[in-house]
Amino acid sequence: MTVEADTAEAGTALAEGKSAQKGASKKRAAPEAATAESLAKKQREISVSEFFAKNRHLLGFDSPRKALLTTVKEAVDNSLDACEDARILPDITVQIRPVPNEEERFRIVVEDNGPGIVKAQIGKIFGKLLYGSKFHSLKQSRGQQGIGISAAGMYGQLTTGKPMVITSRHSAKAAANRVEVKLDTARNQPEILKEEEVPDFRPGTGTRVELELVGKYQKGRSSVDEFLAQTAMANPHVTISYQSPLEEPVIEHKRATQELPAQAREIKPHPHGVELGLLVNLLKDCEAKHLKAALQEVFSRVSAPTAEDICKAAKLSPTARPTTIASREADQLHKALQAAKLKAPPTDCIAPIGQELILEGLKKEVDADLFTAVTRTPAVYRGNPFVIEAGIAYGGNLPADELARVNRYANRVPLLHQPGACAVTKAVVSTDWKNYGIQQAKGALPTAPMVIMVHVASVWVPFTSESKEAVAHYPEIMKEIKLALQECGRKLGSFLNRRRREADELKKRSYIEKYLPQIGIALRDILELTPPDTDRAVNELKVILEKSRKA
Amino acid sequence: MTVEADTAEAGTALAEGKSAQKGASKKRAAPEAATAESLAKKQREISVSEFFAKNRHLLGFDSPRKALLTTVKEAVDNSLDACEDARILPDITVQIRPVPNEEERFRIVVEDNGPGIVKAQIGKIFGKLLYGSKFHSLKQSRGQQGIGISAAGMYGQLTTGKPMVITSRHSAKAAANRVEVKLDTARNQPEILKEEEVPDFRPGTGTRVELELVGKYQKGRSSVDEFLAQTAMANPHVTISYQSPLEEPVIEHKRATQELPAQAREIKPHPHGVELGLLVNLLKDCEAKHLKAALQEVFSRVSAPTAEDICKAAKLSPTARPTTIASREADQLHKALQAAKLKAPPTDCIAPIGQELILEGLKKEVDADLFTAVTRTPAVYRGNPFVIEAGIAYGGNLPADELARVNRYANRVPLLHQPGACAVTKAVVSTDWKNYGIQQAKGALPTAPMVIMVHVASVWVPFTSESKEAVAHYPEIMKEIKLALQECGRKLGSFLNRRRREADELKKRSYIEKYLPQIGIALRDILELTPPDTDRAVNELKVILEKSRKA
Repeated sequence: MTVEADTAEAGTALAEGKSAQKGASKKRAAPEAATAESLAKKQREISVSEFFAKNRHLLGFDSPRKALLTTVKEAVDNSLDACEDARILPDITVQIRPVPNEEERFRIVVEDNGPGIVKAQIGKIFGKLLYGSKFHSLKQSRGQQGIGISAAGMYGQLTTGKPMVITSRHSAKAAANRVEVKLDTARNQPEILKEEEVPDFRPGTGTRVELELVGKYQKGRSSVDEFLAQTAMANPHVTISYQSPLEEPVIEHKRATQELPAQAREIKPHPHGVELGLLVNLLKDCEAKHLKAALQEVFSRVSAPTAEDICKAAKLSPTARPTTIASREADQLHKALQAAKLKAPPTDCIAPIGQELILEGLKKEVDADLFTAVTRTPAVYRGNPFVIEAGIAYGGNLPADELARVNRYANRVPLLHQPGACAVTKAVVSTDWKNYGIQQAKGALPTAPMVIMVHVASVWVPFTSESKEAVAHYPEIMKEIKLALQECGRKLGSFLNRRRREADELKKRSYIEKYLPQIGIALRDILELTPPDTDRAVNELKVILEKSRKA
Repeated sequence: MTVEADTAEAGTALAEGKSAQKGASKKRAAPEAATAESLAKKQREISVSEFFAKNRHLLGFDSPRKALLTTVKEAVDNSLDACEDARILPDITVQIRPVPNEEERFRIVVEDNGPGIVKAQIGKIFGKLLYGSKFHSLKQSRGQQGIGISAAGMYGQLTTGKPMVITSRHSAKAAANRVEVKLDTARNQPEILKEEEVPDFRPGTGTRVELELVGKYQKGRSSVDEFLAQTAMANPHVTISYQSPLEEPVIEHKRATQELPAQAREIKPHPHGVELGLLVNLLKDCEAKHLKAALQEVFSRVSAPTAEDICKAAKLSPTARPTTIASREADQLHKALQAAKLKAPPTDCIAPIGQELILEGLKKEVDADLFTAVTRTPAVYRGNPFVIEAGIAYGGNLPADELARVNRYANRVPLLHQPGACAVTKAVVSTDWKNYGIQQAKGALPTAPMVIMVHVASVWVPFTSESKEAVAHYPEIMKEIKLALQECGRKLGSFLNRRRREADELKKRSYIEKYLPQIGIALRDILELTPPDTDRAVNELKVILEKSRKA
């Protein structure tokens, strides 16, 4: 009905449109006006690597300076993930070497003591976008997309024409393999240029990544130096030794603890976050023969009895074949799943940094008067568990009349770019800091001698782009960040109040003390005391003051 | 050399690392510690549609409300591009219908009078990500990635399980085809469920897109209503009729001009923006047999003599085979190209809105005291020409003590989300508005009764994510936006100065007028005038004042 009504309506709109159009086409004869056929000729597939090569800013390669940082970041993230998965305390060396007689060209070498990579996988891991082990697993890790390091290789190749060189040994017995790989952007396939065994590689297992790129080295905010320092702060179990491209001594970030972070366990999706489409795929792919078993197989928090109840609620037989349900009754099953009362998802898939380490980190970084931190209890967005942690350092030698500094972390990785795009910044700005006695202009960060630290840890951090520089504005995440900031803010507020009260108190005392002699004189005149009595009286007053101060 | 030195260094670091690790592994026996082999088993390819399904916020589908807007936006963008390519004045109807007995479910229908789509292409265009005609052409268009509309279909399918329905006729003679298509996310391939010819479609050519999704309808900022209104403003040649899901009358945005915007012409890449990797591919793919001809074939602004010079500068023979150069001397050719003196890229590939239309648009939208606008001359980033346009509306009934509103456009498409991530916002915040007599807090937007409009037009707008909601911070683009804002700012500044001067002026006059009678009395007493003479003198003074006011 409505369709017809509306087509008619469109028809009338069309009529005048057409006539108008005739007029127009008379005015400007456009020989190259496209037709469905001419357009069809131009329509073709776009390879994912062509897409990202043209959109390299999506991957964090929009400027030479950023490209340098992003490359180091992706390599280090991979090393840390690999080491932690293998329960190895990470030792990482990062080198940035200027390429002789080439300006703005660097050779980056990142080496770790991780489990290494089997030869057959090296090509795909480093020479193909969207290939990896983390995308399909619900578990906190730094990498999640299978893009980062291949993207760095692609950028290097794009700007210098040079391949990536990977050297890796995955067993103390085996020899190390050295592979030169390029990425064929038209096909998004690895191109192996050279493969050989090398004798002179580090002892034990490990991987070394080398690549050459057009970049720019600078110190200061969002520099490689800062990234590695902040990484060491959020990962106290890591040792990083770093050689900058300048003639400087190697910087050693030594590990502060021999404890690896608790190992994050992989979980199954939670029914409440699952979309209809995903449910259908899960049912199609699962091994169980019966719906009831299937529900227990594919989801977390679904026990046998719960599965029974869900089937009942959905008016479906527990013994129905999952594939049939997938194609026919998925919708009612989905509704029943969303309505079902279930425990929140398990949270041992997340490894927060923890209050103590956050405080330590802040203390290491800045000299302030107040330090406070909080680790929130886990929450869920789209079925993904996440934990928010926040910390504040206030006062000390921090600049008083500047905007507060915000240090953002996601899964222990410092985020140094796109603050404006980040849910963390939004949450800080939209928190009312005046409540805690802090200045803040409308729509701006608070103005105070303050460093704010926020860590978003999740099995799947929703980043605003593939470069993983900012967290997307999911309402659940925004809310948790604000709650964490408010907790810290309240502590800060009462600290500032106390300080203010004490200051006033002090002023009053100092007045009394200042006028004690006069009081003495007054007493003497009124009570006609002798000088010694006067002094005694005055001293007693002093004592009383002292006492009250101690109280 | 350095490599060895450094492996050694890593070696020592490793030594302690290993021992530490032993200690650690003793403490927490981790049975599921990963090995290179166990990791290899988990490594696999990720289909681009799986990737975007999980990262749907990258495509603008992070909340039901946003999903609704994004879907309408993608459909309308495509319709406008198709019509303009075919030189047809666009007539577009947009309908959002609530799905009966389903909360938060809508059926969206967008229909145009464009050139239509040949049947064979419908599946791929709507059922496959990264497929389209615009990605490989350097020419201003709204769509550029071949993702948008298929992504909307994928989201609809993910949330409702329903396919997309496309009806299209590409020639008045031919019958219209109706196709039901789904996207197979595991393979990123279209799945055609149904294909049929339908008699009762609109007259002439056109395309109708229908899909069902979980969404949320709201009025106000970044609503569908606002998007369509702003689209009509930036595209005065378009007629849009819109039916909201509420029981409201159809909203008609009638076209203000019968003129299509000048047709943007496709250009070849400009040598100065081309990276080494791209140069290699261009040389490999070109048809020319000789280098000299190749350079003229693949690049804009390279004439025969220029090509000669470039070959000479690169110490390469003009008759060398392009493919050979690609594999061997690409690097020196690239340097020569970058060094060559060349005309800036042609700019008829861009169709700005134009000062007049921007002013009109602002006047239509707000009632203000001052309107000013500017269209900058074209500039280039990474070899891509772009044009910045800006406008300001000030005063009138705009709220005086709120932050200025910023309306952002990219290739005539209003950007309603992620302002914080956008180069436009950054440019507005980092412009010093105090210079123009406007209040502004550190790190915040200016506080003033002001609407700022900025349009970024380019053959390739670098968005910060696939959802095309914010422009990336390329320095060249930032600079141009700031220059445009400063031009408008100066006009605003002098307007405010004048207004202030006039106000002072007026105050002075009113004083004089107030005291005219006294002056009269003074004159009378001093000059001993008769009452009539006094009145005459006073009146003359009045006249003089009047005159000076007119001047």
